[in-house]
Amino acid sequence: MADFEPFDEIAIIGIGLQGASIAINARDRGLAKRIVIGDISAENCARALELNLGQHATTNLAEAVANADCVFVAVPLGAFAAVGEVIGPALRLGAIVTDTGSTKKSVIRDLGPSIPSGVHFVPAHPIAGTEHSGPDAGFKELFDGRWCILTPPPGANEAAVQRVGDFWRATGSMIEIMEPAHHDQVLAVTSHLPHLIAFAIVGTATDMEDQLTQEVIKFSASGFRDFTRIAASDPVMWRDVFLNNREALLDCAARLSEDLARLQRAIRWGDGEEIEALIIRAREIRRALIEAKQA
Amino acid sequence: MADFEPFDEIAIIGIGLQGASIAINARDRGLAKRIVIGDISAENCARALELNLGQHATTNLAEAVANADCVFVAVPLGAFAAVGEVIGPALRLGAIVTDTGSTKKSVIRDLGPSIPSGVHFVPAHPIAGTEHSGPDAGFKELFDGRWCILTPPPGANEAAVQRVGDFWRATGSMIEIMEPAHHDQVLAVTSHLPHLIAFAIVGTATDMEDQLTQEVIKFSASGFRDFTRIAASDPVMWRDVFLNNREALLDCAARLSEDLARLQRAIRWGDGEEIEALIIRAREIRRALIEAKQA
Repeated sequence: MADFEPFDEIAIIGIGLQGASIAINARDRGLAKRIVIGDISAENCARALELNLGQHATTNLAEAVANADCVFVAVPLGAFAAVGEVIGPALRLGAIVTDTGSTKKSVIRDLGPSIPSGVHFVPAHPIAGTEHSGPDAGFKELFDGRWCILTPPPGANEAAVQRVGDFWRATGSMIEIMEPAHHDQVLAVTSHLPHLIAFAIVGTATDMEDQLTQEVIKFSASGFRDFTRIAASDPVMWRDVFLNNREALLDCAARLSEDLARLQRAIRWGDGEEIEALIIRAREIRRALIEAKQA
Repeated sequence: MADFEPFDEIAIIGIGLQGASIAINARDRGLAKRIVIGDISAENCARALELNLGQHATTNLAEAVANADCVFVAVPLGAFAAVGEVIGPALRLGAIVTDTGSTKKSVIRDLGPSIPSGVHFVPAHPIAGTEHSGPDAGFKELFDGRWCILTPPPGANEAAVQRVGDFWRATGSMIEIMEPAHHDQVLAVTSHLPHLIAFAIVGTATDMEDQLTQEVIKFSASGFRDFTRIAASDPVMWRDVFLNNREALLDCAARLSEDLARLQRAIRWGDGEEIEALIIRAREIRRALIEAKQA
């Protein structure tokens, strides 16, 4: 989108995979005239400057946001409340605050109270990621062709919502507007539960006797490998996702446990028809994905 | 391997993904002078000939094996006993019988008794596959760089074991020799449990309310998609794998349920340290895979 009117200055708080990818997009697509990076890690700030991700980088988050038209909070979910307390008083009147958090109810709960009147809060979740983390993990194509879900609170400033949507469209994303609670429920199924399972199954394999674990690694190509890729994701990020979408995730996990128990029972009793029916049902979803061009 | 002395005639029983890929390798790499296909589906036989997978194709499995130096049984595990009864009396003295079954104890139990004295039985499992099935799914590179595990019974003919190993090496595979029970235990962890979980989790998502299922499809790129790919695998094949590796698989599934319950409990009680520790442990396996060049 060549016609995105660039922000004069954006601030990116947290320069990990998401933050760095936002910086690269803003820089290379001309979406901001100036990029300021705030990160509590001095090492990350130094690396961000080496990677030319912004004009200025500082561990002082209040300073980082002071002149920004738009602030992107891209920190682990557990840090939102603390970040809000620091940046809230420093935000410019008329600025937009948005974020990349994987759960939206918790972001609104933790960051919302720190947003002063006259500042526009537009929570967002770009559904894009890799198993890599840190400033070096960022790349321009991360958001291209992916969904970005916005969950604006009731009465949100429409121009601000439009502006955030246009920014994400300019990175190649497609926009969807959702209720925060509904977002958290959908993502519990599509993202949080798969990650939970991947961590569990890879952990199970690790606990086998030593020699067996070695062979699991050797012969991982037969299915296990796909789980380890998911399970390589950032521990702090995922710990915080699990803790901040507790109800929806535990509900999904309970449903899965029931379905798994049903399959185990069918295997124990040699009920081939039941097993086949469950597999065929799973296959249909795959077909629906292919039809929806999401496969 | 240019120096593989080709078989005069091989028979492939069952012309699905595995059988067709064996046929293509034998044909294109000159591993057999003549290829005969046996499949109880007349449609599959016709398609195999259209695809030029062999010189002859028949639904009469006894006829298919009558002149073969080497017979590859590549049918679902549930069909091994019936196939054995039909082909057993027709096998040539000195012939080799091998297979592609995903579990080895059950293959030895079901096919072993039908192998007449003077015929060499070398059970094998090429650890390679895709989510596609049927004769059209076969391709030459399927086995390239992948492991093929041989589980010869005690006292197996060494020349026959060597010959089967050499055939697989000529397709690009790497060979490992294992005890059948140990093979089944390793594969329960690396392959059967991941598939079981994938079927369960995709089924869980299917059971959500209608609108939510549509959104799960739409936003599947966030983790769920990887599971649907595994879950698209052939239902009959996997039903039979589960039923024929019951003990090892149920043991693994029970361990997983315990690990999953531990994670659920940690989430419910907000135990961030416990969650993080479990995720970090899972990450280490991923690192080991990368070091073992299996990632």
